[in-house]
Amino acid sequence: MESPSHTASARLAAVQNHLTIQPCFHRHAIHNDQPTGPADLARERANASFKVEDMTEVLFRGKENVEAMKLAYQLIQRDPDLRMREGHHYDLTRAEDREQTMRQIARTIELKRTIKDPRLQQALFMAMSFYSESFSMRIYVHDMLFKQALMLFGNAEQQDKWMDDINNWRVIGCFAMTELGHSSNLRGLETTSTYDRATNEFVIHSPTLTATKWWIGMSGETATHTVAICQTVIDGENHGINWFIVPLRDPKTGKLLPGVTCGDIGHKSSRQGLDNGWIQFTSVRIPRENMLMKWAQMTPEGEFTPSPNPILSYATLIPERFTILGGSQVVLAQTLTIAVRYGAVRRQGNHDEQILDYQTHYTSLMPGVAFIYMLNVVDRVLFEKWDEVAEYAQTDAGAFMREIPDQHGVSAGFKGALAWYVTDVLEACRRACGGHAYSSYNSIAGLIGDYGVVTTGGGDNVVLMQQCARYLITSLKWAQEGQEVVGSVSYLNDCKKILQSSKTSYQDARDLLSHEFVTDVLTWACAKKATELAAILAEAGKANFDEAWNTNQTELVRLADVHAWRYFLILYQKGIEREKNKSVYPMLKKLGQLMSTFALRKHLDLFLEEGYFNGDHAKEVRQLFLDQCKDLRKDAIPLIDAWVIPDFVLKAPIGKYDGNIYPAYFATVNAAQKSYDTPEYWHKYAKPMLNAPRPGQKKCGC
Amino acid sequence: MESPSHTASARLAAVQNHLTIQPCFHRHAIHNDQPTGPADLARERANASFKVEDMTEVLFRGKENVEAMKLAYQLIQRDPDLRMREGHHYDLTRAEDREQTMRQIARTIELKRTIKDPRLQQALFMAMSFYSESFSMRIYVHDMLFKQALMLFGNAEQQDKWMDDINNWRVIGCFAMTELGHSSNLRGLETTSTYDRATNEFVIHSPTLTATKWWIGMSGETATHTVAICQTVIDGENHGINWFIVPLRDPKTGKLLPGVTCGDIGHKSSRQGLDNGWIQFTSVRIPRENMLMKWAQMTPEGEFTPSPNPILSYATLIPERFTILGGSQVVLAQTLTIAVRYGAVRRQGNHDEQILDYQTHYTSLMPGVAFIYMLNVVDRVLFEKWDEVAEYAQTDAGAFMREIPDQHGVSAGFKGALAWYVTDVLEACRRACGGHAYSSYNSIAGLIGDYGVVTTGGGDNVVLMQQCARYLITSLKWAQEGQEVVGSVSYLNDCKKILQSSKTSYQDARDLLSHEFVTDVLTWACAKKATELAAILAEAGKANFDEAWNTNQTELVRLADVHAWRYFLILYQKGIEREKNKSVYPMLKKLGQLMSTFALRKHLDLFLEEGYFNGDHAKEVRQLFLDQCKDLRKDAIPLIDAWVIPDFVLKAPIGKYDGNIYPAYFATVNAAQKSYDTPEYWHKYAKPMLNAPRPGQKKCGC
Repeated sequence: MESPSHTASARLAAVQNHLTIQPCFHRHAIHNDQPTGPADLARERANASFKVEDMTEVLFRGKENVEAMKLAYQLIQRDPDLRMREGHHYDLTRAEDREQTMRQIARTIELKRTIKDPRLQQALFMAMSFYSESFSMRIYVHDMLFKQALMLFGNAEQQDKWMDDINNWRVIGCFAMTELGHSSNLRGLETTSTYDRATNEFVIHSPTLTATKWWIGMSGETATHTVAICQTVIDGENHGINWFIVPLRDPKTGKLLPGVTCGDIGHKSSRQGLDNGWIQFTSVRIPRENMLMKWAQMTPEGEFTPSPNPILSYATLIPERFTILGGSQVVLAQTLTIAVRYGAVRRQGNHDEQILDYQTHYTSLMPGVAFIYMLNVVDRVLFEKWDEVAEYAQTDAGAFMREIPDQHGVSAGFKGALAWYVTDVLEACRRACGGHAYSSYNSIAGLIGDYGVVTTGGGDNVVLMQQCARYLITSLKWAQEGQEVVGSVSYLNDCKKILQSSKTSYQDARDLLSHEFVTDVLTWACAKKATELAAILAEAGKANFDEAWNTNQTELVRLADVHAWRYFLILYQKGIEREKNKSVYPMLKKLGQLMSTFALRKHLDLFLEEGYFNGDHAKEVRQLFLDQCKDLRKDAIPLIDAWVIPDFVLKAPIGKYDGNIYPAYFATVNAAQKSYDTPEYWHKYAKPMLNAPRPGQKKCGC
Repeated sequence: MESPSHTASARLAAVQNHLTIQPCFHRHAIHNDQPTGPADLARERANASFKVEDMTEVLFRGKENVEAMKLAYQLIQRDPDLRMREGHHYDLTRAEDREQTMRQIARTIELKRTIKDPRLQQALFMAMSFYSESFSMRIYVHDMLFKQALMLFGNAEQQDKWMDDINNWRVIGCFAMTELGHSSNLRGLETTSTYDRATNEFVIHSPTLTATKWWIGMSGETATHTVAICQTVIDGENHGINWFIVPLRDPKTGKLLPGVTCGDIGHKSSRQGLDNGWIQFTSVRIPRENMLMKWAQMTPEGEFTPSPNPILSYATLIPERFTILGGSQVVLAQTLTIAVRYGAVRRQGNHDEQILDYQTHYTSLMPGVAFIYMLNVVDRVLFEKWDEVAEYAQTDAGAFMREIPDQHGVSAGFKGALAWYVTDVLEACRRACGGHAYSSYNSIAGLIGDYGVVTTGGGDNVVLMQQCARYLITSLKWAQEGQEVVGSVSYLNDCKKILQSSKTSYQDARDLLSHEFVTDVLTWACAKKATELAAILAEAGKANFDEAWNTNQTELVRLADVHAWRYFLILYQKGIEREKNKSVYPMLKKLGQLMSTFALRKHLDLFLEEGYFNGDHAKEVRQLFLDQCKDLRKDAIPLIDAWVIPDFVLKAPIGKYDGNIYPAYFATVNAAQKSYDTPEYWHKYAKPMLNAPRPGQKKCGC
């Protein structure tokens, strides 16, 4: 036994070692300005296991689109109306950001007229979406929310009347749904549209403060029109919600129309270039024809026909939720490009390793990289289906009604489950860039701010996950009653059979690489959870349903999460089948396999708890996950490069393509500094403190 | 079997029900501006199960301190040099924020001289820390980082020379450690301090771009001095890192001194009022006496004595890490006050329930509420110990050295594990406030921004968790060799005995409420993981150690996390023992019990995977967690009120004390809007688009 002080000093030596603070003579060797980054990235690129150009073609659906994107980026970089004119985006004031965004919109609308190639037109909008989130959101509000409302709720006559003006921005439209007091619960909305028989008009009114329309994009400063969701009051009776076109501003002067009060929401977590606003209507009269009448009608004689089913008029919320797959790609591809490149260039540790080689580092980023590929592939599968369904809205109401429930269930579950995971990946990227992510000039903080709204906006994720769970519970009931259910829930037809096996058929680790095997495991988990929860809810009975639901809310949300991930994996597999003959197919498959393991690992405690997996299975899942991440890490840079995001779009020197990050970062910070003179406030507040007399010292006269 | 179309319509009806969009006649009843919030909060307060004032006294360590805090808040609210003068914090420009922060500092330094009661002095600084994060950080840089460096590394003579100037801000000090190219790995720092025998001076130099000191708080615009960490080069030989006082600016003019280049880091994720900067030294000469010489010395004759152990000079990093407990309370108590009050006031859902009554809602917030109480209690326990240790630095070097290893291990593990959890709670609060958290005027986004730096700054959390793990592995080795280990790792002495039981002694759910039982479970997990990992590392041998470490990095971090949470629970239990006779003791105990279950639940998969728990145990842990959250939810508002944060400090109308949130929120947004006139850019860019001629229409002349 050693003496206590000896022991203490031995411990101290060991701790000293943890701190790695010994004199470090060899460090002098790196005292030169030869950057290691460019060589690191060049080596990573040379070792790519697949052809990056081929992958880019898959991501953008063909060589022609890739060429169009490149041309679009060039256009943006060169056109002084499209690009940032000087300084850094995050040094703009709100007013400057607003102006820049509107300038970009005006210019793209102009270009839309002169560019004859529709491929380039589309590429320009996509490239601009990567370049500016505020631009993208302003366009989204007008083109997606406002215009889609017209497309889905307006009849042919209304579409004829408005569509050309909308397409050419002769009106600027917004979408007034959310109110100050209610959002996710549409039934609670308070704004009224009261029919006046005498004049054949509707009177739009915000009866209370909480009825104020809130967050409405472009209502703050620019929109000339809105579609507003209102309770429809006819002869004193509420006929539920409908959509109405309400003019807001005079297009000649920009002045608010009588009875309309719009204000700006002011400073937000991000997207300062978008004028989110609030709207109060004080007895605003609009002609009868401004009610959107594809499903509900009000005749010139004042006869009201309600929609055959009110849900039809909410169909616009479904594609809005699906757009999260596209929007998430834009934000995540940029954030991951920055974080992955920085990880490959930054060197730190005992042997100045590339930090991306640390296990905790590559396991925090590689699933995100795989995930953006999944978003890209599944996005296409979903919209191909949705476009088909949306077409039915114009051609076949019955078919439209048949398809809507599953579309609704999928969109709710995907929006909830996927947006939550995006948030996790963004946070992982932030941490992976250490302190440098805290600088606005590396864009990560801004991208996170942009995304901040997504997990609660467009339907709160917790609410959406419950909508998905409710759909599952109801579908299971139908299936148990002998009705066949279809689409994402079709496995519920076989629930009994699925649950006959209470243990996995797992034989060896290779099983975990099989799409079918993983799907089976997740299917079992969904079937098991759904059956259990349905039984609990059924037992509670109708009177206690709400309470029973709330008592099991956590598990219901978990059920929706497992279900959503399961279907996401299935659609990915379906989506990559068409790339089967491409050179990059093996890589696409690998990416899906990692995310399959990821999904199993995410819910490992469930499989363990239910005895479906034992401890050894769990260990093998976790080990496989580590191995897969390590394997994919080798292709990290090529997988990121394939997204071809130019440096000027990234606006993040630590994510620069050439890897020479420090001079670029330093130059950016320097450029933002307007002056090295002592600031005014220093003289006012610091100087008197600094020059206060010491005790016993006479006050100096200076 | 029903007809397909009938089925489709039944499904549609069910989906319609999920969307809850039926006409909702009863909603007209809420068409009035009678707010429900005040009554809701009054009821919650009336139902408190404990005396809020008694709890506040525990949080602030006595009635007198509570009174002092209240007085301090009054002072701030009334003093035009301390309070915001107009507008909202998040509408300030960076320059305005900087000026305001410095004005507040100048005023508090003035008040420090006139306020005779030290209790009030201290309360004023604490209250200001709640009021302004930028103020708090500027004070922290000077008083904690700069001054503590003098206290811990400076000898008596140096302390005599500098301390009065520091205390009275006749110098403004900063702390230059991090460099552009290296942060967590101190050994890699590049800045040199080269001894010049001819002049008896040190020459401070940044040899490369990556050697630029980076992120240095107050170096951007204000600091007159810094302590800089440098490689000490004497006669061409590197003697490792030491600390040096380097003047930066002329205190009369604020101008940079020759050879010193400081610039501003510019826009950041948050804390715009703090002038983070960068520093480049170009052959800056300082007198020999500016080397801090408590541990290492350079005599006037040029004889260098290194520190007896280099680690001693890094002791300042330990209390810096412990301050995370205090800093996290400031941020979390505010964020949770906002989120919990909003949850109790906001009504949404089928029956317009208080959203805090939803299971997913209260389970997302109540652990956070319990956690801030734990931070408060453990903070005290830690600093009582640290103050004792810091005293040894002045009086008993041997004792200091004996204590440092465990202090280091605890500070690393706590900083990592707790800051990660804080980030989770902040995100939960953001989501709990829905879209309204996206408005800067509800402060949550800003508080999250403020905290954004913490998980990577002051030691990257992943690195710190590994330091903690390394300490555990080394301690286990010592224990296995028969040396007794002490402090946080003392359980490792009994590793063998602990591991003899491979299954829990769990009998019924009451066991889970016992502190000893939960600690035993976590102790088992730590012992098990540590033993396994130590064996793997030992088998790998010295040559392959780094590789083996990296292959097991994920599990090593997990080990550190379980260990940190275990010790956190133990210190909390220790801390509340002194409150045993207080009326609020049962509540304090309850809060600890929730967090014990939380810690078990967090690592449930580990217990399941190892077979220590079976599925039934796991289910009971999860059920208990839900029950405890539900139980504590009843006291949510009183538990939050006990922190007595005034509305003007919160700056978040949705978290207002009286619950009348909507008029306040609306008024705040309105006040931020300077004008309702059409903005300039509208005329420039929107008007031409809106008034462009339609096809076939002649261009109008207007």
